[in-house]
Amino acid sequence: MHKEWARFYRYNLSMNVYLYDIPLVEAKARLKQALERAGLWRVLGTETIILDENALGRILAEPVWAKISSPHYHASAMDGFAVCAEDTVGAQPSHPITLQVRSLDDGKSDYRTCYLDTGDAMPEGFNAVIPIENVESLDMDGEVTQAIRHPASIRIRAAVTPWSHVRPMGEDIVESQLVLPAGQILRPVDLGAVAAAGYQFVMVARKPKVAILPTGSELVPIGSNLKVGDILEYNSILLAAQVRAWGGDPTCFPITHDDLNNIMAVVQEASIEHDLILLNAGSSAGAEDFSAMVVEKLGTLLVHGVAVRPGHPVILGIIDRTPELTRTIENQPSASDRTVLQPSKSRLNMIPIIGVPGYPVSAALTGEIFVEPLIAMWTGRLPQELPSVQAYLTRKITSPSGDDDYVRVAVGKVGNKMLAVPLARGAGVISSMVRADGLVLLPSGIQGAEAGEIVNVHLYRSQADLERTIFCIGSHDMTLDLLAQFLATRGRRFASANVGSLGGLIALSRGEAHLAGSHLLSLETGEYNIPYIAQYLKGMEVKLYGFVGREQGLMVRLGNPKGISNLADLGTPGIRFINRQRGAGTRVLLDYQLSKFGIIKENIQGYEQEEYTHLGVAAAVASGRADCGLGIPAAAKSLNLDFIPLFKETYQLIIPKAFSESDLLSPLLEVLNDPAFQHMVEAMPGYDVSQMGKLVAEM
Amino acid sequence: MHKEWARFYRYNLSMNVYLYDIPLVEAKARLKQALERAGLWRVLGTETIILDENALGRILAEPVWAKISSPHYHASAMDGFAVCAEDTVGAQPSHPITLQVRSLDDGKSDYRTCYLDTGDAMPEGFNAVIPIENVESLDMDGEVTQAIRHPASIRIRAAVTPWSHVRPMGEDIVESQLVLPAGQILRPVDLGAVAAAGYQFVMVARKPKVAILPTGSELVPIGSNLKVGDILEYNSILLAAQVRAWGGDPTCFPITHDDLNNIMAVVQEASIEHDLILLNAGSSAGAEDFSAMVVEKLGTLLVHGVAVRPGHPVILGIIDRTPELTRTIENQPSASDRTVLQPSKSRLNMIPIIGVPGYPVSAALTGEIFVEPLIAMWTGRLPQELPSVQAYLTRKITSPSGDDDYVRVAVGKVGNKMLAVPLARGAGVISSMVRADGLVLLPSGIQGAEAGEIVNVHLYRSQADLERTIFCIGSHDMTLDLLAQFLATRGRRFASANVGSLGGLIALSRGEAHLAGSHLLSLETGEYNIPYIAQYLKGMEVKLYGFVGREQGLMVRLGNPKGISNLADLGTPGIRFINRQRGAGTRVLLDYQLSKFGIIKENIQGYEQEEYTHLGVAAAVASGRADCGLGIPAAAKSLNLDFIPLFKETYQLIIPKAFSESDLLSPLLEVLNDPAFQHMVEAMPGYDVSQMGKLVAEM
Repeated sequence: MHKEWARFYRYNLSMNVYLYDIPLVEAKARLKQALERAGLWRVLGTETIILDENALGRILAEPVWAKISSPHYHASAMDGFAVCAEDTVGAQPSHPITLQVRSLDDGKSDYRTCYLDTGDAMPEGFNAVIPIENVESLDMDGEVTQAIRHPASIRIRAAVTPWSHVRPMGEDIVESQLVLPAGQILRPVDLGAVAAAGYQFVMVARKPKVAILPTGSELVPIGSNLKVGDILEYNSILLAAQVRAWGGDPTCFPITHDDLNNIMAVVQEASIEHDLILLNAGSSAGAEDFSAMVVEKLGTLLVHGVAVRPGHPVILGIIDRTPELTRTIENQPSASDRTVLQPSKSRLNMIPIIGVPGYPVSAALTGEIFVEPLIAMWTGRLPQELPSVQAYLTRKITSPSGDDDYVRVAVGKVGNKMLAVPLARGAGVISSMVRADGLVLLPSGIQGAEAGEIVNVHLYRSQADLERTIFCIGSHDMTLDLLAQFLATRGRRFASANVGSLGGLIALSRGEAHLAGSHLLSLETGEYNIPYIAQYLKGMEVKLYGFVGREQGLMVRLGNPKGISNLADLGTPGIRFINRQRGAGTRVLLDYQLSKFGIIKENIQGYEQEEYTHLGVAAAVASGRADCGLGIPAAAKSLNLDFIPLFKETYQLIIPKAFSESDLLSPLLEVLNDPAFQHMVEAMPGYDVSQMGKLVAEM
Repeated sequence: MHKEWARFYRYNLSMNVYLYDIPLVEAKARLKQALERAGLWRVLGTETIILDENALGRILAEPVWAKISSPHYHASAMDGFAVCAEDTVGAQPSHPITLQVRSLDDGKSDYRTCYLDTGDAMPEGFNAVIPIENVESLDMDGEVTQAIRHPASIRIRAAVTPWSHVRPMGEDIVESQLVLPAGQILRPVDLGAVAAAGYQFVMVARKPKVAILPTGSELVPIGSNLKVGDILEYNSILLAAQVRAWGGDPTCFPITHDDLNNIMAVVQEASIEHDLILLNAGSSAGAEDFSAMVVEKLGTLLVHGVAVRPGHPVILGIIDRTPELTRTIENQPSASDRTVLQPSKSRLNMIPIIGVPGYPVSAALTGEIFVEPLIAMWTGRLPQELPSVQAYLTRKITSPSGDDDYVRVAVGKVGNKMLAVPLARGAGVISSMVRADGLVLLPSGIQGAEAGEIVNVHLYRSQADLERTIFCIGSHDMTLDLLAQFLATRGRRFASANVGSLGGLIALSRGEAHLAGSHLLSLETGEYNIPYIAQYLKGMEVKLYGFVGREQGLMVRLGNPKGISNLADLGTPGIRFINRQRGAGTRVLLDYQLSKFGIIKENIQGYEQEEYTHLGVAAAVASGRADCGLGIPAAAKSLNLDFIPLFKETYQLIIPKAFSESDLLSPLLEVLNDPAFQHMVEAMPGYDVSQMGKLVAEM
């Protein structure tokens, strides 16, 4: 190693630029050990609450043993007549037996039946009920009467067995039996059963109070007017919602700027009334990352850096609760719950703190990996376990071998094949969490997974959701978002991946999509798509549907400051172009036109810079990263760019015949022919819907 | 038909004693049609709420299109140095390039790099970031410095490509793209994405307000001192919790007695501020069932009786909203939600009403079948769809062929076989809903299902829950409840079915249980269980574990009013016995002892009356249904009975070898050897734990 390099590394190490990531299992073990030592590895406390619908989702802190039986007396199970079964012996259709009726209030025992409503107690001396529809009600004269519930006597034509149509005492629940175990998450029927077992109150685990502390000088609250460099603070909303979903009671603090003393002060304040502090962010080792220092100053830094991706700069620590104030709050019931009857137990004098990384995906995963199991343990339930499914990986994933790598994937069923499509990897891409149907965990020691491998996916969504997902892979068009919205109201999820027209055809050929959007121009025939289908989808029966005609042209900043007017200008020095990826229809179109006009690619600055969508190209131009790019007018309009129209092209949908006739896709064909959808597309600039939903070809 | 019968039917029909059950599909269609006509088949209204954790679980009323891009500027993805990629061309380990540093505030353009924290905006003229750990920081003299973030210059030994370690504007979300479709149920990550897309508020569907009206003169609130004939009113809690779980806003009214005018008055009151009324019960056709009449008087009775079981006496109707007051409440925000910024839309002048049957299982299923889809439609989400699984039915089910029959089943996996065990069918047995892991729907036209048939189970529980379920079938002992509680804290669900000792052996032989509890006395050898195992589990390797020694004897009411002292007294006229079912170890013991003492079964009054558990026998005695029964002292003590000890017996656990060594069952063997568990069992009357957890035999 070069001498200077060695020195440099030593310096940096001493300054803690690098985090020493430890394995997840070890990190969790250290936290557990520290909590055990502090007496915090247990259900935090209990509270007795009124048994009403607010008890829904709370977790039983003790088993419920029945205090009474249900029913607590022998009850008639029907509207009918109580009898002594022995009195009915011998009754037959042709040999009816008549029984004198008494009213319930009348104590005389020589009458042999009486009327009962469902639920009425069986009177002494009776042991069966004959449903009202099985008797004839007779008046004083022995004639059938309309006063069916108040006859003088009844006639029966069949014997009954003892205890028929009677709900014996304890039929449902017998006093002293176990109704529900501790740890049960209360569902509606559980609340009914606990009530039936004689309870008016129920003892549940107290909700852990979690303080969420956003820190960072660059952070601004949502709703602020944004300046360049401002970062919207929304991790606190995400973390608070996670805490709430998992059964905790979150409190979001205001933003604290990057100042060691300020952060220490707010952590100390939060320590008073909470059970857990989430300090977000400053958990890495940057110039203004104070979290580790705060934890060290106030208590013990257990872990700084965990070998998980995304989310490795996690801090785990345990600190002393600020002492002076501890006593004053000990016996207050949790403020958030007005139904609490019995105050929670006092808190101990230590409190764990988690330094949560700042990137939103890292923050969300830190919640799932560290916070959820803590809340589970503190409330006495099992940690949540996502259902899993085996799926076929559509693309290779590479992964750093030293980390447990959590890869977000879209999941859907194409034919009989369950597919997992890897999504954007960036820790800053919160939309990838929104689109994620599940996670694939690549444990440390594994360097990735190959396309076509079967992987285990931990699902965020139900099987039912997956079964109603339409996978569309191919070229990007902005109307696909609109299509997704129209399909959502028809019970379909529309997952689209933008891999370019050619990528879509290849996905179809591999059985990895229900349909593909494509606008591939044949350089020989001038036709769209058909020659490509013939080449790439040999042997597959497909239908080609019209979707949109659209303009393609150059997007430039407002006022066209570089004075660009056509493709020939792309070769001009000082003009920076932004391109689409290889295989995109727009790229094919560009290359076709460049060769037609004799423009040399190598002369175009930025030809190698690729974006995957029209909006991506528009964003690059809008932000000044490039001066122009080829794309569609709707994208230009969305980002307030000028548009120089150059070409017209045809964008079509390719659907394998088997799918085009499936229940899953029928709402899609409906939407294509829905005038409401067509009108909305037409209202976007540069779109022609005259061919939409028309069958162009069957191949 | 007999002439008088014909007359009787006609009378009863005219009095509406029978409900004309219509098919479920038709009932739902009628309700839909009426709601469409009333303009109520749509999302009821919207409200704009603050984007915070309280938005969790709310349903988007409109799609979210991004208002801004995220990031909204080109941002550094790392702590590092911004460079112009072109300046790094040619840098190699042996040929480093040195770049002068400027501070961000310093506007001079002749410096060629500057330090950035993660998230900082890329300054004009730079297009890549080199992470801090990849540079050497140099001081004024060109020496490596510890001031790594504030050097005079940096030295790099590798070229970088443009845009590396930069998060370009729009990397996550591009302005104008679809972030979430309408109908999305907001999850934590969704809240983050909506915030990232530039929103501070979000428009969601208003929560439908559901009034729950318990009616019935026999009803008393939970917490009341119960008299015979009183019925605890807890359906309102169950229904309110369901409504809340499904996204509605429930209001429980106090109990109304069975009086037509009172009920009409409370229905009219409820109609003012709600979107749906659940009238419980009085939906059948009994003497005091006023629901149908109320609906007819106030509006239109659409359906009275649906061909579903349990729950057929359902009423569906639509009534006029009480008019005078409607206007005054139209523009008030829903009171329950303090974060509402925009009032909900005014309500229309009709309101649907559902007459919910009184039995709790019927009430719960009516909620699932009718209320959940209504709330779904009114809030713009898809109706919930339970996941389903194919399972092997362990017992025959018979079913009325005219009804859609919802059969509650326990579900578990024994070996590789997914089992569905039918539970108690009674509509009054709420504990069967608690124990139910799912429902089997036997549609009308099907008369039942055979044991061994593969049925489709709609699951209430996750696969993970099913995989951690231990199925124990066999003899009933009260300590099994305690075992269930101990196992719950060790992450296992313990589902026990009481089918008697012999039934347990048969279940094991069929592969339908993980273990069986048994106390079968061999009449020949005086041994317990071993001869029976040899006979019934031929060819299966099993382990026999000690569980408890226990007393058996006669349970009698306190003070032993009939003066019973031994088995011989059972033959005395006037003494009513209650028996256990055939195959129960206790029944085997009884029969053995009866024959030993020469007592003739036929002389025992009640010998044919069977209960399935010790507690069931105790309840029969406690309630006066019988004078005595054979059983265990713990059951007698539970229900405050006297106990006459007669015999000692051995209760053991039979576990197939494969299961005894499984992860699933290892917590069970742990519990058996847990002194805490043994002490609690010993504290119950009549138990001996000296053999607990010991391996008695391997066969």
